[in-house]
Amino acid sequence: MATPLRFDAGALELLDQTRLPAEEVWLRCRDPACVADAIARLAVRGAPAIGIAAAYGLALAVRDGGTDTRARFAHAFDLLASTRPTAVNLRWALEQGRRAFEDAVDGGQPPYEPLVTLARRLEDTQREADSRIAQEALELFSPGDQVLTHCNAGGLATGGAGTAGGVIEAAWKAGRVAHVWVDETRPLLQGARLTAWELSKAGVPFHVVTDGSVGTLMARGLVDRVVVGADRIAGNGDVANKIGTYTVAVVAARHHIPVYVAAPLSTIDAATPTGSEIAIEERDPDEVTADAPAANWAFDVTPHELVTAIVTEIGMLTPPFHEAIARLEAAPQAR
Amino acid sequence: MATPLRFDAGALELLDQTRLPAEEVWLRCRDPACVADAIARLAVRGAPAIGIAAAYGLALAVRDGGTDTRARFAHAFDLLASTRPTAVNLRWALEQGRRAFEDAVDGGQPPYEPLVTLARRLEDTQREADSRIAQEALELFSPGDQVLTHCNAGGLATGGAGTAGGVIEAAWKAGRVAHVWVDETRPLLQGARLTAWELSKAGVPFHVVTDGSVGTLMARGLVDRVVVGADRIAGNGDVANKIGTYTVAVVAARHHIPVYVAAPLSTIDAATPTGSEIAIEERDPDEVTADAPAANWAFDVTPHELVTAIVTEIGMLTPPFHEAIARLEAAPQAR
Repeated sequence: MATPLRFDAGALELLDQTRLPAEEVWLRCRDPACVADAIARLAVRGAPAIGIAAAYGLALAVRDGGTDTRARFAHAFDLLASTRPTAVNLRWALEQGRRAFEDAVDGGQPPYEPLVTLARRLEDTQREADSRIAQEALELFSPGDQVLTHCNAGGLATGGAGTAGGVIEAAWKAGRVAHVWVDETRPLLQGARLTAWELSKAGVPFHVVTDGSVGTLMARGLVDRVVVGADRIAGNGDVANKIGTYTVAVVAARHHIPVYVAAPLSTIDAATPTGSEIAIEERDPDEVTADAPAANWAFDVTPHELVTAIVTEIGMLTPPFHEAIARLEAAPQAR
Repeated sequence: MATPLRFDAGALELLDQTRLPAEEVWLRCRDPACVADAIARLAVRGAPAIGIAAAYGLALAVRDGGTDTRARFAHAFDLLASTRPTAVNLRWALEQGRRAFEDAVDGGQPPYEPLVTLARRLEDTQREADSRIAQEALELFSPGDQVLTHCNAGGLATGGAGTAGGVIEAAWKAGRVAHVWVDETRPLLQGARLTAWELSKAGVPFHVVTDGSVGTLMARGLVDRVVVGADRIAGNGDVANKIGTYTVAVVAARHHIPVYVAAPLSTIDAATPTGSEIAIEERDPDEVTADAPAANWAFDVTPHELVTAIVTEIGMLTPPFHEAIARLEAAPQAR
């Protein structure tokens, strides 16, 4: 999987995901406003990837030095933080950027290089997490499995092998997944456009289906497991993910099909006790249809009782999730 | 609600539903091949409407008299019957056409006028059924109700007031429905295009949502009732309807939200014992996406245990549905 972002010569280049699969166009951002715009309009998306992009965005804000560094940093921070409310990785990455900035300035150093170093580290850490998540999840699959996934949680969403996407591809390479059902994932079709593009490149057998097909697929016995990513996981294990995930999980429960959430620890937000407190982004109704009034929540919350396991880079979390997550919090070195 | 079909001067005119809501274009069919093509490509759709259109198609086959009437009728019958497999109304209407044809020919009469008369009668009967269904359903609603519907079962689907659509509009007029959620209904967006167009014309307050939004709407307490139409109802009460209906019904069950199916008796197919025996149409995968392999079942089956009531023109059927439907069969005059 080619990475959807690369930092080079003082600019962040982003594979414009709004143009896939028709065209592979790279955006070149030399300032944080460009990065913020790319995040807001989903040119770069996926909880881990927008965290990494935002960290690079902070670096770009202070690249040229000067006297108003602090003001430019603060402005960039606010701009980037305001782009999307649901994925916790964004704020998590920005907060790390703030600490790197303060440490540099307190130490009398220009903050640009430390911020670039931080962003690169976030990128490397995510890539490593993706690989580990995929390995941890292998045992969940059996030869012949048909897997359903929703939205895109592949390399495009993380910069690495992907969370759910990485899990599926690794399990397929290991001979444990025979076929993948890809929800098209309306309104912006991140399944039909992005996951399908990734699986095609990887050679994984798949079919795209409309989101409403989930029920009939499961009733026909064509789905053995559901694997999805996450934008934020609350302290009790409730999972915010792309709109439609909850619907999938409810139908899966009726058919006794396990639902696995693949996510790095950076997606777990123990400070948010339950899914009810997660801010759910509402986007432009015109993304649904311009011909009529529409409502366009971008995410929904799958309650923890519908989640079979959360696969992280340090292993599998299983119910009761609030206890598993409390243990993580008590051992912060793991994070 | 303007009717989507009209027969005049030896031609069947159909409002081309593939062009709505952008354009109101009428097709003019003077032969059964044109009608069959319109049904196959969904220029006319909805179980009752395609039955009526097919009956007019049979009339057109024998309009010009001649010696090969029987061959032309048989050819038209097969052509029209082969267009779509799931809606039972199509074959039900065609079989009535066959009887009208045989009666006319046996009686030494040209069959054209009897076939036109039959088609007009089917149309009138459906219009009357729609009105009665709407009246029968009124008691199910309470002021302030928010209703969710899937696909289109309005006037465009029946030629009358609509089944589910007629129910919703009548309940809204009676002050018992405050707002409607319209599933966009991928892949062909019959909710976002057709139901939205109808509700706009009627002035009913509504919002379109993606099909994946059903879960979050119900979890947020924004849906009091689900009302859908049907393409075929098996002898045990299993309901074949537009793909995605089963998914909606499963989520509704989790949230204890009643699911009402509004359908004329002609949609009930007691000869098909359960939903498993209903032929489910698979359509061109390119309707989903042309960029990747796709699967495109057009319908799914909602098992009877997820249906709260079936509202027909002779009243409400309630569980156990197999008994209610058996009683109908035992009293054929009702049909």
